[in-house]
Amino acid sequence: MADNLTKLVYKFGDAVAEGDKSMKAHLGGKGANLSEMSSIGMPVPPGFTINTDSCKYYSDNDGVWPASLDEQVRDGIDHIASQMGAGFGDSENPLLVSVRSGAAVSMPGMMDTVLNLGLNDAAVEGLASKSGNARFAYDSYRRFIDMFGDVVMGVHHEYFEHAIEGLKQERGVSNDVDLTADDLKELVERYKAIYQQHTGSLFPNDPYEQLKLSINAVFGSWDSERAVKYRTINKITGLIGTAVNVQAMVFGNMGEGSGTGVLFTRNPSTGENKLYGEFLVNAQGEDVVAGIRTPEDISQMADEFPAAYERLVDVTERLEKHYRNMQDIEFTVQDGNLFILQTRNGKRTGAAAVKIAVDMVEEGLISTKEAVRDMVEPGHLDQLLHPGFEDPEAYKSDVIATGLPASPGAAVGKVVFSADEAEARHAAGEKVILVRIETSPEDVGGMNAAEGILTSRGGMTSHAAVVARGWGKPCVAGCGDVVIDYKSGSFKVGDTTVNDGDWVSINGTTGEVIVGAQSLVAPELTGDFGTFMAWADEYRTMNVRTNADSPADSEKAIEFGAEGIGLCRTEHMFFEGDRVDSVREMILASDLESRKAALAKLLPYQKEDFLGIFKAMAGKPVTVRLLDPPLHEFLPHGEEGMREMADKMGVSYEEVHAKVESLSEFNPMLGHRGCRLGITYPEITEMQTRAIIEAAVELSQEGVAVHPEIMVPLIGTVEEFANQKAVISATADKVFEEKGARVDYLIGTMIEIPRAALTADQVAAEAEFFSFGTNDLTQMTFGYSRDDAGVFLPEYVDRKILADDPFQSLDVNGVGQLVRMGTERGRSAREGLKVGICGEHGGDPRSVHFCFEVGMDYVSCSPFRVPIARLAAAQAALAAE
Amino acid sequence: MADNLTKLVYKFGDAVAEGDKSMKAHLGGKGANLSEMSSIGMPVPPGFTINTDSCKYYSDNDGVWPASLDEQVRDGIDHIASQMGAGFGDSENPLLVSVRSGAAVSMPGMMDTVLNLGLNDAAVEGLASKSGNARFAYDSYRRFIDMFGDVVMGVHHEYFEHAIEGLKQERGVSNDVDLTADDLKELVERYKAIYQQHTGSLFPNDPYEQLKLSINAVFGSWDSERAVKYRTINKITGLIGTAVNVQAMVFGNMGEGSGTGVLFTRNPSTGENKLYGEFLVNAQGEDVVAGIRTPEDISQMADEFPAAYERLVDVTERLEKHYRNMQDIEFTVQDGNLFILQTRNGKRTGAAAVKIAVDMVEEGLISTKEAVRDMVEPGHLDQLLHPGFEDPEAYKSDVIATGLPASPGAAVGKVVFSADEAEARHAAGEKVILVRIETSPEDVGGMNAAEGILTSRGGMTSHAAVVARGWGKPCVAGCGDVVIDYKSGSFKVGDTTVNDGDWVSINGTTGEVIVGAQSLVAPELTGDFGTFMAWADEYRTMNVRTNADSPADSEKAIEFGAEGIGLCRTEHMFFEGDRVDSVREMILASDLESRKAALAKLLPYQKEDFLGIFKAMAGKPVTVRLLDPPLHEFLPHGEEGMREMADKMGVSYEEVHAKVESLSEFNPMLGHRGCRLGITYPEITEMQTRAIIEAAVELSQEGVAVHPEIMVPLIGTVEEFANQKAVISATADKVFEEKGARVDYLIGTMIEIPRAALTADQVAAEAEFFSFGTNDLTQMTFGYSRDDAGVFLPEYVDRKILADDPFQSLDVNGVGQLVRMGTERGRSAREGLKVGICGEHGGDPRSVHFCFEVGMDYVSCSPFRVPIARLAAAQAALAAE
Repeated sequence: MADNLTKLVYKFGDAVAEGDKSMKAHLGGKGANLSEMSSIGMPVPPGFTINTDSCKYYSDNDGVWPASLDEQVRDGIDHIASQMGAGFGDSENPLLVSVRSGAAVSMPGMMDTVLNLGLNDAAVEGLASKSGNARFAYDSYRRFIDMFGDVVMGVHHEYFEHAIEGLKQERGVSNDVDLTADDLKELVERYKAIYQQHTGSLFPNDPYEQLKLSINAVFGSWDSERAVKYRTINKITGLIGTAVNVQAMVFGNMGEGSGTGVLFTRNPSTGENKLYGEFLVNAQGEDVVAGIRTPEDISQMADEFPAAYERLVDVTERLEKHYRNMQDIEFTVQDGNLFILQTRNGKRTGAAAVKIAVDMVEEGLISTKEAVRDMVEPGHLDQLLHPGFEDPEAYKSDVIATGLPASPGAAVGKVVFSADEAEARHAAGEKVILVRIETSPEDVGGMNAAEGILTSRGGMTSHAAVVARGWGKPCVAGCGDVVIDYKSGSFKVGDTTVNDGDWVSINGTTGEVIVGAQSLVAPELTGDFGTFMAWADEYRTMNVRTNADSPADSEKAIEFGAEGIGLCRTEHMFFEGDRVDSVREMILASDLESRKAALAKLLPYQKEDFLGIFKAMAGKPVTVRLLDPPLHEFLPHGEEGMREMADKMGVSYEEVHAKVESLSEFNPMLGHRGCRLGITYPEITEMQTRAIIEAAVELSQEGVAVHPEIMVPLIGTVEEFANQKAVISATADKVFEEKGARVDYLIGTMIEIPRAALTADQVAAEAEFFSFGTNDLTQMTFGYSRDDAGVFLPEYVDRKILADDPFQSLDVNGVGQLVRMGTERGRSAREGLKVGICGEHGGDPRSVHFCFEVGMDYVSCSPFRVPIARLAAAQAALAAE
Repeated sequence: MADNLTKLVYKFGDAVAEGDKSMKAHLGGKGANLSEMSSIGMPVPPGFTINTDSCKYYSDNDGVWPASLDEQVRDGIDHIASQMGAGFGDSENPLLVSVRSGAAVSMPGMMDTVLNLGLNDAAVEGLASKSGNARFAYDSYRRFIDMFGDVVMGVHHEYFEHAIEGLKQERGVSNDVDLTADDLKELVERYKAIYQQHTGSLFPNDPYEQLKLSINAVFGSWDSERAVKYRTINKITGLIGTAVNVQAMVFGNMGEGSGTGVLFTRNPSTGENKLYGEFLVNAQGEDVVAGIRTPEDISQMADEFPAAYERLVDVTERLEKHYRNMQDIEFTVQDGNLFILQTRNGKRTGAAAVKIAVDMVEEGLISTKEAVRDMVEPGHLDQLLHPGFEDPEAYKSDVIATGLPASPGAAVGKVVFSADEAEARHAAGEKVILVRIETSPEDVGGMNAAEGILTSRGGMTSHAAVVARGWGKPCVAGCGDVVIDYKSGSFKVGDTTVNDGDWVSINGTTGEVIVGAQSLVAPELTGDFGTFMAWADEYRTMNVRTNADSPADSEKAIEFGAEGIGLCRTEHMFFEGDRVDSVREMILASDLESRKAALAKLLPYQKEDFLGIFKAMAGKPVTVRLLDPPLHEFLPHGEEGMREMADKMGVSYEEVHAKVESLSEFNPMLGHRGCRLGITYPEITEMQTRAIIEAAVELSQEGVAVHPEIMVPLIGTVEEFANQKAVISATADKVFEEKGARVDYLIGTMIEIPRAALTADQVAAEAEFFSFGTNDLTQMTFGYSRDDAGVFLPEYVDRKILADDPFQSLDVNGVGQLVRMGTERGRSAREGLKVGICGEHGGDPRSVHFCFEVGMDYVSCSPFRVPIARLAAAQAALAAE
């Protein structure tokens, strides 16, 4: 401690670095990093850091500075002045500095920043002549008085604002920029008067006094109510105070020898290893952003500022090596001297992320482990797997509405308003976008035929969204601005009307709806992608399966690296072609015999599906979930549909209507579905088991390895499971006997009802595997219906009542408790119980991390999210190393 | 152990009792009790028990008996023979015995019973002559061979069944009773042949051999797969084996000196202290039950069997003293000797239970503690609190349908089919029964006006059931046989049509629907009831509150002994009179201002309600739940209702229709309701809080003690609670300031969402009390909608997939885990947190026990169930002593 009260000030700057990154506790995060950057040769604007111990001393001693602080601060200023070739308060070449707080942990509530400190009546003239811009100088000066008054001395910003408004009125102008240099000079005087009026003293002309007051303000803000409260709430303890950073201001607009720019060390769109950025001579950073003057390409700097450019190239190489990542850099050249103002890891597209990762491994800059762990966000991959618009900017003016980005990718087609029409027009070779208020299982044929889907109702987990994501088909959901009128065959957005047959484009990645047909580009799964994913798989320990309901989906998932099927929903199969007629016949059946007869018609279809899926997944496990939705989902809703059905079935409309009525439910989510159906109608379970097992036996007789896992949905009690297990194994045994051959198979269950998780030990005594159905588990644990929560969930997230939409990212605090409990209790009753997840969360990177922590054997997600889950699983394994 | 292998057989019978009730481990439960009964002078048929140590020896020694067992068994048989004056295998007076297993714990899976052992070709003749009934003798014999063959020797019963079917075909008869004595004699021969064919040996003619084989079968069954599995599943350990009970068979049909009867020691309907029973000379027990001959009243036995009767009277007195309860006794007189075949606590009506309890205390037979703990089941009280039919048998022939007994009590009235009509006819002085397919909150006015409610749809917790129970109004729900046609104003049950205005009676205790008007009797809360409940309260430690929504309910609940209100639902108040118009105005409001204006109209009504309720509950705590149901519940459903509303509100039908559409939900149970409404529309929470606090302050200024507890419904995250808490306390503070006075009040929450229970520690950091809403918690934990589960829940209970309907009795294994977890975690964060329950389970005795075990401060239930809960809570406290 004695030591820390001897050396209080740590200098940094080109070739000087008295601290380093290990000294965060004493220099704060910002201060330690400024020294660190200086130490690796980065030309950061010179400055110094006052250590946190000084702040503590100040706090403990009623605002008195440690003995030598004043002297060390003056020495620090001398260091800056000499590096900058400028003088504090100098009327020819004034040194201006910034003062910033910086504790070891980033902490809102403390004093933030004072800029341009050092300006006074003399220095402002120096700034004016040096920059050749008196207006700029006086504008800087009046801003400094405002900021110093407000932040350091507590003179409310409003008073200054009032003064400038008054002056503008006097001058008859409406914008700040219309005030002249003289006006601003006048304003400086008025600001000083305000300052004096509210502080009772003159505005300090002495830069040292300005500095000392500012340093005290930073020290004092450590104990401010807001900062103390922030530390309490966030349980931040063990810190002694804040450091203070004093750093030279640099200006790129000090004449033709100055300039400013921003660059990425590699191309952030493509990943190409070439500096990518812009540069403006005699300009400030704001000018680059404002777009008033057109910046030059960064490569031109080589001609105009050859020395600075050479330095810059060197700096970028050192920075990439040091931070082991592509950097996004802001710099300024003042009088030919290069200063690095900021560096950070650069944002990039998915394509660039993958290329940069692979290149940097090949350049020997990073290891494959670092590439997998640090260089690509799982979400990045999403961009690589879907088509996009050719020109991501050009279409912006044609955007008419924005809904939820429910399923990523871009799609273009002609508007149709019904599933039937979508199928018909698709069959005729047209590209269509299906536009519906909402979709239902009846619409799947048309949804599949469409290029993309747009709905005006429903959330991220509405029927349309879930089905579309499953297929990797672009979908914009819940776009409330789109007002659909089925009758007239059109939709309106404000005054714009879009008719049946008009071209529209949708961007499922952003939720945008665009009039007209935009050009598309197909995704390119380059060699780099394969290389990178292979590295990820090396570090991954948890398996990744897919949710797939058809042979086509299965094949696509295999391409994306799926290691099995975690959820094969059998109900989607019930809607294809004429099958739904047999399903309806089964539902209308008044006795067991006719129900069995109807089911017998479905058997060959189901078996055909399983033959295709098992073949596609040869050798990999396939989890088949038995029928889940309530039976009324297979019946038409409106009178027209019911009449059609009655005609087709040869029964009266009244009979159909009565059945629809009798099956209708108040809360279908909590109604007669899942295993409850299989218990009431064991013949359904028998038919499905027969289809699965017959397919498996036949393929295995052909030499195809088949590993079926039959999954009973929606159990809440072990007795329900035991009931269905008995039906399944009796049916399987019968098939084995008929075929004279057996296959190994498992019987397990979804854990998607809270009670199943709570009694998982009992359930696992019977079940051979668990798969967490976190969609339903989230619905029931929160008491949210996904179809209805759209009314309040967005508001909940906005207002921080929920950190995230729990249907997108698993709620670790609540639902996660049940997942953990279910896994642990299940394995306590059956050692090594196979556990997976098959809810939407299986493709969400954060949720994948959680599944890894819980010790799951696999996650399962839609085919297009398989690579994302693979990378997330690899990163989870690396994070646990 | 040496001891237990010396004395292996314990004899019992009139005046002999070698064991006692303390010897369960060695004699099994049944054996210990047979000795015990003998020891207190009960003339049980003589017999002996072989100890469990013998079974263990047999098990450990590959089926060898302990050295002296054979000798001791023969001695036991001699004991029986001498007491019965009969001989084993005797052709004149044969001794027949039963052989039964009996471990210390009742255990299915072991060999159960062999009857009539001792019959052989000689003994059957003795039985025939002694009973004067050859057919009976041979029927007994062939049954013995069947039973012995099946149970002892493993010859499947089916073979014997096949033989009797064959014989009946030969004889051209279709019923067993048409076979003559000679036929049965022939059948005995065929049975013996079957026995020989399947066992390879002759049917044993030697009774000792029969006995030895039977004893071995009992010993062997201890290690049977089923018994071992049962012990494993039920975690039964520490038992060494089963005992074997050998007991004389006695026959009441051995001639005119024999007879049989059943009696209660007190009148089971009224409780009167006088023997109550029936007696038949020369008959078997089956004859009494079968009703072929008319039995005599038990008092007549004094004339016909004076000695046996005197003995019987003595026995009944001893038994009441010994078992400290009214007994239900089966007895037989064989040749003038009285044998007690069975005694058990007698079933009784609620009225009898209370009278017997109070009488027995006054007679000095039992203590008040025993009266409360053992003599009255809580459910008994239900019968005392509701009107019933005058003649509980007379109406049975007029029962046309049976639905769910949704709310107990009997009601009589004229059929009406709409709530409006019910109100109108009630206002005109008529008694009506409201008949609806289902009810909704709109119907509450009419429901209240009706004498009783009958619905054709919905379960035990449907809207009709819940509301009716709350009011103690009889209700039969979900009566599917009743087909209602609103158009024609009639309902049909099969061929019977009941029209609007016809008289019907309903029995909500049994679920019966009766045509015509039956006579009713009012409940009599006699002095005994009051006496008994006062005793119960002495032993009770947990509080009992009530669910009440109106001053009238509150007053009724106070009469029944409620100690506060645990749930005051505010939404029911919204339907009374014209209030719903203001609610609808609020819903239609397009902006905050007009919403507030509509709410302002509701404020005085709500406040008036609270004034009444607080006054009725003066000094007792009142928990008020803020608005819970989704807003669409307040809107009309059909077009007619919407048009009416549009007219009344002065808006277009389209506007109303659009609002109804926009508010409609797929799963309202999981939708925009509870605190989610209060978060979206804080002005609703403000209005309700203001009504509560203004009422509380005003009354307290008048000197009435008021303890409001404001309860936020349906929270799933602490953030939701904190949001509403802030609104509530800000509003309360405002009212306090306006009124210049404060009252103490609490802000707490329902725990009814699984996530709230899982995160109860976080919630309790903010909430001042918890009340478990186990209705919704059960719905979400199981994933059952109470409105829809009626389709499968009854089947689940029938098929033992569920032990009970979890909406009636709390599911301790699943939902109970969350209740326990919520309580413990809540109290871990806030010591002494007040915890109660306000779901329907608060009035279910078993659930009350559970709540006591969990350590709740109170249970709350509908007024009519308050006495039941009081008794259940007292019994729970006594059980824990």
